[in-house]
Formats: sequence, structure tokens, C-alpha cells
Amino acid sequence: MTIGLTPFSVSTILSRVRSEPPLVQCLTNAVVTNFTANVLLALGAAPAMTDIPGEAGPFARIASGVLVNLGTPHAEQRTAMLEAALAANDAGTPWVLDPVAVGSLPVRTALAAELLALRPTAVRANASEIMALAGLGAGGRGVDATDNPEDALPAADLLAAKYGCVVAVSGPTDVITDGESTLRISNGDVLLTKVTGGGCALGAVTAAFLSAAEDGEGLTAAAAATAVYTIAAQQAAAGAAGPGSFAPAFLDALAGLSDEQITTMLVSA
Amino acid sequence: MTIGLTPFSVSTILSRVRSEPPLVQCLTNAVVTNFTANVLLALGAAPAMTDIPGEAGPFARIASGVLVNLGTPHAEQRTAMLEAALAANDAGTPWVLDPVAVGSLPVRTALAAELLALRPTAVRANASEIMALAGLGAGGRGVDATDNPEDALPAADLLAAKYGCVVAVSGPTDVITDGESTLRISNGDVLLTKVTGGGCALGAVTAAFLSAAEDGEGLTAAAAATAVYTIAAQQAAAGAAGPGSFAPAFLDALAGLSDEQITTMLVSA
Amino acid sequence: MTIGLTPFSVSTILSRVRSEPPLVQCLTNAVVTNFTANVLLALGAAPAMTDIPGEAGPFARIASGVLVNLGTPHAEQRTAMLEAALAANDAGTPWVLDPVAVGSLPVRTALAAELLALRPTAVRANASEIMALAGLGAGGRGVDATDNPEDALPAADLLAAKYGCVVAVSGPTDVITDGESTLRISNGDVLLTKVTGGGCALGAVTAAFLSAAEDGEGLTAAAAATAVYTIAAQQAAAGAAGPGSFAPAFLDALAGLSDEQITTMLVSA
Repeated sequence: MTIGLTPFSVSTILSRVRSEPPLVQCLTNAVVTNFTANVLLALGAAPAMTDIPGEAGPFARIASGVLVNLGTPHAEQRTAMLEAALAANDAGTPWVLDPVAVGSLPVRTALAAELLALRPTAVRANASEIMALAGLGAGGRGVDATDNPEDALPAADLLAAKYGCVVAVSGPTDVITDGESTLRISNGDVLLTKVTGGGCALGAVTAAFLSAAEDGEGLTAAAAATAVYTIAAQQAAAGAAGPGSFAPAFLDALAGLSDEQITTMLVSA
Repeated sequence: MTIGLTPFSVSTILSRVRSEPPLVQCLTNAVVTNFTANVLLALGAAPAMTDIPGEAGPFARIASGVLVNLGTPHAEQRTAMLEAALAANDAGTPWVLDPVAVGSLPVRTALAAELLALRPTAVRANASEIMALAGLGAGGRGVDATDNPEDALPAADLLAAKYGCVVAVSGPTDVITDGESTLRISNGDVLLTKVTGGGCALGAVTAAFLSAAEDGEGLTAAAAATAVYTIAAQQAAAGAAGPGSFAPAFLDALAGLSDEQITTMLVSA
Repeated sequence: MTIGLTPFSVSTILSRVRSEPPLVQCLTNAVVTNFTANVLLALGAAPAMTDIPGEAGPFARIASGVLVNLGTPHAEQRTAMLEAALAANDAGTPWVLDPVAVGSLPVRTALAAELLALRPTAVRANASEIMALAGLGAGGRGVDATDNPEDALPAADLLAAKYGCVVAVSGPTDVITDGESTLRISNGDVLLTKVTGGGCALGAVTAAFLSAAEDGEGLTAAAAATAVYTIAAQQAAAGAAGPGSFAPAFLDALAGLSDEQITTMLVSA
């Protein structure tokens, strides 16, 4: 049973991120590196895309949080991802797994299973990917979500319980669970799905917020990341003429997001 | 002999793309992945940049269309490109070859020849690249077009006849041929050449349009892709203060392009 | 002793770049390739991201200038970087080394030393990186500058004298030295640090300007690159609502920068 995420919780973690900028290491896909770094900078965090073997591990030890996104997992990056996850675990650095398009594609599906076994702090994905990751679905086609977050809740709970992680399922209403409690965020805008990396960059923001979480705050932090991200998107969409003008407006909105906007706009259950 | 592309043809294929979003697999260069994905999203298509060996082939079987762009062809991607082209042929998936900077650079020039022999559905390039690909020129310097599309028409016709493909030559007036008929589109704006990926993303749009073409519609579909793309560019340029503001305006224009704009603005012969 | 950079010097080299567009080869990191190419296009230069072994060397022979940026140096790119630097030296092509995050990360730190020994025409970096490169500091965390350019001047002078290169240290006041004379530029805006690649793209602009320099003009050209870049940033920031709207405005400002703006805005000592 939950009563939803409070604006106060969101503002508290956001202010920690802004006052003590976390260093967020992203091992992510080639399509969204630029947008992801700009999202982190707009948020007040410091991005670093250190993703080669021999450096990914040492960097994960000094990073505040790590994102492992499987969008375009070429061979060197796969090695670096495992290296980073192991080092993050060893150093106590929170890390987020984004299993892009897991299910039907063999290389990333095998890698996702290997990474999942290393027990990420959080998993962020769309409903189809979460169901595929839990073995309860076939996955979507590419990054498309063909399933509903609510339908993926059993799979998300299963993953959360089995691997001790928070699972965030993105969709029109985002569902975030730790296997015991569930939070729902109904902010955002469909334009966020019309900019590549709209989901991927949220994984990086989640890593930033987890790095600012205290013990036991994982669920709240992951949900707060989603809230900040989707509220900024909703605000940006209000003034956008299309997906092109939405993207820079979204970065501006993230950079300028105020506690008042969070209080006014947050829709959570 | 042709009488040009009709606005009706353009609108018809665009409406198919929008109503049944094609899944477009892009094996493309590191510089333009983000812009290319955003162009496809703005168009209403679903991009997927699956470009690693072991996944590129299986994905090409389920994709609606495939783009193979040789801009930064590192070793893994070269393997994946051949895998994707073979699988696309086997599955009947249309695919587009964009032989970036072919001619003087040895690795991509050899790869382009190998891919061309696999008979792409279409080739999209600038005039210098088309002439180099046909063995009739030395290629430009990098992605620069130092030749005129009209001058490349003999080379384009030769390629079209020999490999059974449509050839689209980009330039101030775009020339599209299947070796028998030729269509010319005189829309666009010079700002499109001031945004990196301005040509590359058109290759992805061409793959999307080819996936919506019926038998015998290849030439029309490739020309319609060019028309939609360059009309949107022309419209965006009208309100842009420079190349920076042009790029988001172009995505907005693509997303919002109407049949009326196509009818009013299309300049084809 | 110097009396600062003159607006006339800046305008002279900029006009050369615009009237005879240099072909700038960038071997740069995956995060900033797109932004870097767009910055070069806005400036009037022609970018080419040729960074694979077997092509990087031949291309460096025909390029006007080369950038080697160590942000995400995967194995193939490392080979290509050494190939490009050797070929650039052999052909007399000016090249710029940007030793991103050098110091603590082992792979790039070893590579930076190897490249430095090949005597780049210029080194561009932040203060922490310059100090680490000269063996006088531990480096920052990732791309963060935790030191001041003025504090890095001894390290910059040491590098300039030892390797015969110009060293440009980016910061609130940029410091550029050839080991004998020092130029300072106090233009720019903090928003430039909120867009990923804000520093990296300056390395590419520096390569473009060096290619337009005559004998003995290296220091002036590198400083002029910084001046044009930071004046455009300052102008763009004046009308930006945040980092998102700043980026396109910056590209517009670069494309439209006038001699009058340079004369009015340049702050140099």
C-alpha cells in the first residue's frame, strides 16, 4: 500500500543533486549519448561517458552513479559494461540497467541476463522490455513499447523481489516498484516518445537520483527521477510546436524546474 | 520520359508511413545517429539502430526497411552491414545504401563495392559519390558534393541498370532514376547542407518510404521521400535564423507536413 | 610580453576560414561528434569524422586540419589516432590534441603521452587536464575543470616549450600560450559548460583556424579560434532561456558572427 510520491520528496532529492552534482558514468548507446549528457548537465549533474575496457571499472569506483544501457552494445562496450557493474558493486556505487530491446535480439538478451545477475540498483525500461527481462513476454520490436506498464507490474515485482532492485516501468503512467510498494507517476507528454533517447536519458537521471538517495530511499529516488523528468517534459510540451522545438525546451525546463512547479504539477498515486 | 512526381503520389506514400509506422533499421555513422533517429520519429516512423554482428541480420528480417550508411564504418559495423544486407535480401526487406565519401578512402570503397553487388533497393548519395561508385569519378573530399546531380545522371543510370536499383542523387535539384525514368525535385534549402546528417537522414527516410511502396513503386517512393524531406526543409528555412534554429524547425516541419503544403510547394519535373 | 589579441587578427583568420572552407578531420568522442560537426559547418568549415584504421592516415594527408580528442578512445580509434597524427606530421597538416580526462584514466593517459610525443600543433584542454598532461596535477574528475587556467599556465608553458606547440587552456578566462607569449580571452558564458561538447568542439575550431594560419601565426590563430567561439557563445547566451535553447542559438551566432561584433565584444589581454 502506498499513498503516492510527495512533491516534498521530489524537491528534496532534486535539491541534493543540484547542490552536490553527482558524477554520472554512462555506458550507453551511440544514438543518445549526446542527449543523455545534455539532460544530465541541465539537471545539474556531471556526465562522463567512460565506456572502454580498462577505464570503465576504475571510473565506476569514483563515479556517483552508473548507467548501463544496452541500445547498441558492441563488443568493447559489452566488456566495459560488465567491468563497470562489478566495480560499482564492489565500491557501492548505485547503477541502473536499461535493457533496451531485450527479448528477441540474442546478444543483448544474453548480456542483460548476465548484468541482471549482478543485481543492479535499479532497472528502467518500457513494459515490453520488463516483461521480456522477467521471462514473461517476447519483448517489443526495437525500443517500442507495445505493452502497458500496469500489465508489466507482475514482471516488475518479480524482478524487484528476485534481484533486490527497484524497477521503473516507463509509459503514459510510469510504474515504479521495489517489489513491496508501488508508486505511479502520471506526468509527461507524448512528445517525449518522439525524441530519441526520451527513455534512455531517464535511466541516467535515475542513476543521478539514486546517488543522492539515503539508505532505504531507493524507491523514492527512482520515482522522483521519473517525476522531475516527466514534469519537465510536460511543461516543455506546452510551448512546443513539435518534436524539434520540444527537445531544447525540455532541457531548458529541466534546468529551470522549480519546487513550485513540482508541487503544482506532480500527479502521483 | 516522365512528367514529374505528383503531389498526390507524395501524400499517398506519406500517409501510409504515418498510419502504419515502419520499423527502420539504421546501420549508420556515429555523427548522425541521433539526428537520423529524430527525423524518423518526426516522420512517424520507428527507428532502431541495431548494428552489431549477431543482431543486425535477425533484425533486418523483421525490419520494414534498412539503411546502410558508410560514414564511419568500423570493423564490427562492417560485418553487421553485410549481415544485414544479406538478411534483408533473403527476407525481402528493402534496403538503402549510402556510400558516404566513397572513392578515395580504401576501406569504405571496398565495402561499398561488396554491398553494391548485393543489389540494394536504392542508393542515395551526392553526385561525387555516385560518380565514384560507378567508377566514373574520383569522389569528393569527404561528404562534400563537388559535382552536380545532373552531371551524375549517366553514372546513376548505369548503376540503376546494372544493379536493378533506384538511384537518388542529392543536390540543389535532386535527381532520382531507376535507369529508365528520371524524376527531379527542386525543393529544399541550402541550410540543409549546414546541418550534419542533412543527406544521411534522407537515406533513412528513403528506406521508410520504400517500405511503404507497392510493387513497381520504387522510383516514386524514393522521389516522394526526397520531396517530403526537402519541402519540410524549405518550410523550416523560411523561419530559421541560421543552421542552429533550422534543425529543430525542420523536425517540427516534418512532423507537421500537410497535404496542402505538399501540393503548394512541390516543384518536380 | 603581449598586448592581447586584436579584433583585426580574429576577423582576418575567420574570413580566411569562411572564404576557403578548410576540411577538418575529427577523431573525436561519441558524445560530441554531432555537435562538433555542426559547429564546424556553422563556422563555414567542412567536417569529416574519418576515424578508422586504414582511412584516418590517408585522410589526414588531404585534410586541412585534424582534431584528436580522447573522450571515448576505443581500440580502433586509438589505432586511427596514431595513424592520423603520424600522417598529419608527414604531410604538414596541423593537428590539435584534446586530452579529455587525462590523468587518472589509464588507457587515455598512456595514449595522450604517445600522441604528445608526436608533437601536436596545438593542445586544447581545461586546466586540470593541462596540469595532468604536464605531470603537474592529478587531473580532474571526467571532463570537469577543477582548476583555474591561470594556475595551469606554468604547466602550459612547460608543454609548449617541450613539444613546440601552442597550448590553449579553457576556462572563464581562456589562456593561450606558445611558451613565450601568452594571450588571454575573457569572453564566453557559463552556459557553454552546460552543453556537452562545449569544450570539445573548440578543439575542432582550433584545428580549422590553424589550417588558415600562416607561418608564425599559430598562437594568434589558436587565440582567434577561442575568441570567435566564446564571443558567439556570449551573444547566444544573451537570448537563451537555458542550455537547451542556447545550443541552437550558439550555432546561429557562429554562422552569423560579424566583424563588428568581434570588434565590439572581444575582451583580450
